Amino acid sequence: MTAWQQVAGQHALNLDTIQKADKQIAPYSVHTPVLQSDALNKHCGASLWFKCENLQRTGAFKFRGACYALLQLTEREREAGVFTVSSGNHGAALACAGQMLGIAVHVGVPRTAPQIKKQNIAQYGARITELEPGMAAREAFTAEQQTTSLAMFIPPYDHPWIIAGQGTAALELIKHQPNLDCLIAPVGGGGLLSGTCMVGQSQELAVYGAEPETVNDAWESLRNGKVAPAKGPLSICDGLLTQLGEHTFSIIRSHVQDILLVSEAEIISAMGLLWQQLKIIVEPSSATVMAAVLKYPGLFEGRNVGLILSGGNVDISRLGLRSLFDEA
Amino acid sequence: MTAWQQVAGQHALNLDTIQKADKQIAPYSVHTPVLQSDALNKHCGASLWFKCENLQRTGAFKFRGACYALLQLTEREREAGVFTVSSGNHGAALACAGQMLGIAVHVGVPRTAPQIKKQNIAQYGARITELEPGMAAREAFTAEQQTTSLAMFIPPYDHPWIIAGQGTAALELIKHQPNLDCLIAPVGGGGLLSGTCMVGQSQELAVYGAEPETVNDAWESLRNGKVAPAKGPLSICDGLLTQLGEHTFSIIRSHVQDILLVSEAEIISAMGLLWQQLKIIVEPSSATVMAAVLKYPGLFEGRNVGLILSGGNVDISRLGLRSLFDEA
Repeated sequence: MTAWQQVAGQHALNLDTIQKADKQIAPYSVHTPVLQSDALNKHCGASLWFKCENLQRTGAFKFRGACYALLQLTEREREAGVFTVSSGNHGAALACAGQMLGIAVHVGVPRTAPQIKKQNIAQYGARITELEPGMAAREAFTAEQQTTSLAMFIPPYDHPWIIAGQGTAALELIKHQPNLDCLIAPVGGGGLLSGTCMVGQSQELAVYGAEPETVNDAWESLRNGKVAPAKGPLSICDGLLTQLGEHTFSIIRSHVQDILLVSEAEIISAMGLLWQQLKIIVEPSSATVMAAVLKYPGLFEGRNVGLILSGGNVDISRLGLRSLFDEA
Repeated sequence: MTAWQQVAGQHALNLDTIQKADKQIAPYSVHTPVLQSDALNKHCGASLWFKCENLQRTGAFKFRGACYALLQLTEREREAGVFTVSSGNHGAALACAGQMLGIAVHVGVPRTAPQIKKQNIAQYGARITELEPGMAAREAFTAEQQTTSLAMFIPPYDHPWIIAGQGTAALELIKHQPNLDCLIAPVGGGGLLSGTCMVGQSQELAVYGAEPETVNDAWESLRNGKVAPAKGPLSICDGLLTQLGEHTFSIIRSHVQDILLVSEAEIISAMGLLWQQLKIIVEPSSATVMAAVLKYPGLFEGRNVGLILSGGNVDISRLGLRSLFDEA
């Protein structure tokens, strides 16, 4: 049993925890805007309220959980520092929160992770160790850290602290717009969706998860009653490739209305619609929720829908912006 | 003398007018977010506060002035409807405000305007008349409207109502962040910069305009003491191709610290930086202010800078989003 598993066992998770997290992280996190679009409302025949976690510090909701987790450490644990393994948003979130709180952060990053993701972690002063791709190197790194240092492992999603932190996005959303009928969030490891479920349930809202159909392990997990393994890198939604954890599965299974599957083409199309109409950059993982609302109109038409846009970390340098201004 | 020139002569413009406009348009406009970026602050050695008018209704600050202008009409004028000539954001803004207020809007649009701009006007139920490109057709359309209908002409920038409305963006910004040292806004016809000047002056802030060097007529106007003519379509900043007006020149000349010129390459580079770091879509006109802060560090380093991002209307369908996810 790892250190964080021991901690996890000691901490109950309920709406009070999320409210406590909300208060504790408020001095550090961005109270992200909630946007609406006349055109998208008309297009969907629903009233859509977009919680913009792409505008969160480090460009993703992950900052919320990472920050709340670090705020729970004792003075001695703070001094020992923390570590994690991440190729993306969780690593940057932990590095940023660590820098703000004066806690040393060490991130194991797969050698093959995109350069922009490594830079995003490095800019917050975290120590980076490059790992070979795959589970074996991750586990070796984790084991080595646990024997050679006192640093605590901060997992990306399957921990009550992380789930409570991620739930603050939905909490801010329902405070901003109290008359919602339902909430929808992307599901990968399930941290964001679990937190959203707990908030939604407290208001008796239907909560949906949105998942790429190419990596439909959460959908399968619900149907089979046990955590299905990750499918591999088969979706452009690089934030949604992981499988559910023990805590997140348990919460999602109890509270979620359903997991809605969307295709890669539907995700790209929804992403373009969000960029065009909301004037914001969202990453494909975020666009799953818009794609789901478009694909399952029977669930959403005529309703007040809260959509959590999880992040906006895409590599703009690959777009060739100049081409926007060539003669048509 | 046109109808709006008569009206213009009757209306003094001062900070009180902008405060009045702020109250009047609040039920209709979006109170747009103010964003910050750790990375951009570090990059510039300044504290930058971005007022996101790309997130305003219709995707640009223009809604503010159009809405305030329509709110000033008498009952009889409302019934007669309004018209304008616009190939872009002003037309959509007027159409949207008209739809919200139940006022008929008629927009003369150059036949050659991009399809997406025409759609943006049409989606708010305005009547559209296609015009041949160039001043002659615009003037003929305007003259015809004034002889054949009672509809009032609502100009795009050179009117106290419009200027007061546009000034509400800066007013919201200084209320959000009271300790700014300076403000910077793009300059085309000068409506936004004039309103920003009046707000900035009331707080003794330095106010700068940002202008593409290929269409530097506002810069020339200041140096020559008279309004320089527009340079033609020589910049990707399609919102900044017009020349100053009588009112806007007078206000800008009295209050602006300077007009800062930036190149097309600097604008595209700054636009990419804003997309990447702020996770929002801004159009090139908006990026001029970021480009200016980067180009003239001596003016901004170590200061609290308020930047007005004027709009976000670009045609996303031209980007080829799928290419973001091709193997690198």
